[in-house]
Amino acid sequence: MKKTADTLQSTQVKLSSDTIELGIGQPDPDLLPHDDIKQAATHCINNNYSTSMLPYGHEEGCDHFRQELSQFLSRHYRQPVSLDRLFITNGNSQGLSLICTLFCHSGDTIFVEEPTYNLALKIFADHHLNVVSIPMDDNGIIIEELEEKAARFKPNFLYTIPSFHNPTGITLSQKRREQIIALSQAYNFLVVADEVYQLLHFGTPPPPPMADYLDSDTVLSLGTFSKILAPGLRLGWIQTGQYLMSKLVDAGVVHSGGGLNPFTSGFVRSILELDLLDPYLDKLKGIYGRRCRVICQTMSKNLPSTITFKEPEGGFFVWLKFPSDIDTKAILTKARQDKTGFKPGFLFSCNRNTTNYARLCFAYYGENQLETGIKRLAGSLLKP
Amino acid sequence: MKKTADTLQSTQVKLSSDTIELGIGQPDPDLLPHDDIKQAATHCINNNYSTSMLPYGHEEGCDHFRQELSQFLSRHYRQPVSLDRLFITNGNSQGLSLICTLFCHSGDTIFVEEPTYNLALKIFADHHLNVVSIPMDDNGIIIEELEEKAARFKPNFLYTIPSFHNPTGITLSQKRREQIIALSQAYNFLVVADEVYQLLHFGTPPPPPMADYLDSDTVLSLGTFSKILAPGLRLGWIQTGQYLMSKLVDAGVVHSGGGLNPFTSGFVRSILELDLLDPYLDKLKGIYGRRCRVICQTMSKNLPSTITFKEPEGGFFVWLKFPSDIDTKAILTKARQDKTGFKPGFLFSCNRNTTNYARLCFAYYGENQLETGIKRLAGSLLKP
Repeated sequence: MKKTADTLQSTQVKLSSDTIELGIGQPDPDLLPHDDIKQAATHCINNNYSTSMLPYGHEEGCDHFRQELSQFLSRHYRQPVSLDRLFITNGNSQGLSLICTLFCHSGDTIFVEEPTYNLALKIFADHHLNVVSIPMDDNGIIIEELEEKAARFKPNFLYTIPSFHNPTGITLSQKRREQIIALSQAYNFLVVADEVYQLLHFGTPPPPPMADYLDSDTVLSLGTFSKILAPGLRLGWIQTGQYLMSKLVDAGVVHSGGGLNPFTSGFVRSILELDLLDPYLDKLKGIYGRRCRVICQTMSKNLPSTITFKEPEGGFFVWLKFPSDIDTKAILTKARQDKTGFKPGFLFSCNRNTTNYARLCFAYYGENQLETGIKRLAGSLLKP
Repeated sequence: MKKTADTLQSTQVKLSSDTIELGIGQPDPDLLPHDDIKQAATHCINNNYSTSMLPYGHEEGCDHFRQELSQFLSRHYRQPVSLDRLFITNGNSQGLSLICTLFCHSGDTIFVEEPTYNLALKIFADHHLNVVSIPMDDNGIIIEELEEKAARFKPNFLYTIPSFHNPTGITLSQKRREQIIALSQAYNFLVVADEVYQLLHFGTPPPPPMADYLDSDTVLSLGTFSKILAPGLRLGWIQTGQYLMSKLVDAGVVHSGGGLNPFTSGFVRSILELDLLDPYLDKLKGIYGRRCRVICQTMSKNLPSTITFKEPEGGFFVWLKFPSDIDTKAILTKARQDKTGFKPGFLFSCNRNTTNYARLCFAYYGENQLETGIKRLAGSLLKP
């Protein structure tokens, strides 16, 4: 019922309801925590949290909620996270837009990874930024390229997705994280780290988040409840050092409107106080981990050996590499006829490169549908 | 309990708890609709609205909610308001910031009224806009000045607060509304109308909102639940024509994050379905109307006759004019010693003019406190 075209925002094509669109990069609607939200609503009401949910909130967000969030993050990052370093947002998309407003002028240059999250590119375009891409290898962004371009372009910031990268699934190595911080200080740019998948690992956790380097005063670490609880909440946070925090708190939107989401913060405060998030996150990791294995195994068995990929250890996505003369956009047309789909690679490049790649999401569909989708795709590829 | 420094966001001074700070421009926390929210939460849960509250929402907002909102607005604007013309926001501050992002580059010129809403000026500064002010008289913005400057500066938009203006309380006349629209078409600028106080009239309604002129394709009319329900909801809307709507729906933040506030929309949908908003709004108008009369009567009786004002017919604010050699910033220091306060006039001018004015809000405090606050201010003015 839920998985119809109705929920397919950002997918420009009308799909038939039996299409398995592996391009959709969203949490599975069937896994959304409806019962936890109901419990939280009752808790919230019984404890009269509305006194802090209904007025204008503090610029940085509700203290009670930030306290709960700091404890949650301290537990999962295995590092103390101070509530003084947390600025509450409406999720990472709006956090990113706020950062563009506060730290850039139109025409300024920023860096992204090649490839990068396709829809972040639209946010940067809205802010009229000059986007320069830095290539990646299996360990993340290539440091020599970053240094050479930093010297040349003097970017305002680097936008990076360090863990279980969208679209590649790659995790930036510990050593490169440190090198990026050193370069950000040497060349005076900010590191805007989209740490949306940091907590969604299926076994070994990734290296500590970029939020570990707040002392550099160059890091803005963006986190969100969209992938670990529910995207409709539009609730996230920016973890940052003292100086950058003072810039966020001084933004006109929070001077005028107060905290960015006091109402929803009250509900999620209840979710955290009731200890509902940890078990829900464990459940998600188990399910997504199994789905990841299923999609990878099915691809290994059914796709031609000329198509390669690396099995991700977390996140939402697997990144397929086709032979270099293949444009996946053309393949998509065939796949759609066979009632499946993916996101073609060119979307993730600010230069419209990576045309011989495809991003598949294993989070949105169940194991059986993933198998069926991949088999349809394999069949589609065999056709002339 | 509620009216301590804790709720005084945007007031940079620490106030003692017995200060009556008439500068605070917020709804009275004691009037916030806690019981209505509780009822809505139960309704929402019982009707399983969470299926549309938890996933990514449609870019323009939840259809069910927009349907309810369109009926509410049609009733109060006494004009049919189509849901297709409503784009849901996180309130007017963020709506305004989104408009700056989408319709301006850094360095572009925009127009504001002189005086204007002080905190909007900070939002425009964050977007690095060149702000030019247009003087007002008792009927709102002066049309000849607008035309002369429009020809000279070619602004991207005019930011106006047409009804019960912040800080002056003035309402733009019907004729001038039409003239502004004509000029916006002739000189190719947008009209960004902050219609936050449109529904808060104490007797005769103001002229129809600028949203009445959507056919011009130059109007973006911003509305919000902040002043008619609760600011912590961070929920509002932009009503606009087809072309500008397509620009909003194409914003990177909604491509990436989906609708701006699906979760809270579900609760307010319940408030509307349960018919709780109309009686609440009636109650507010009654209370604010009485408070407005009390503050004006107390001022007439107690303030020196050299200080003049016009009694507002709606909104939150009354604007005091002091003799032209008085700087209200200096008076504020004395007033604070006497445990009262106001917002000094210079804050509302992008040129730091209007120094001999003061903005007082009659919405935040009850009638007795307003009387006491004004008497303290009067006493303060008598001191050498």
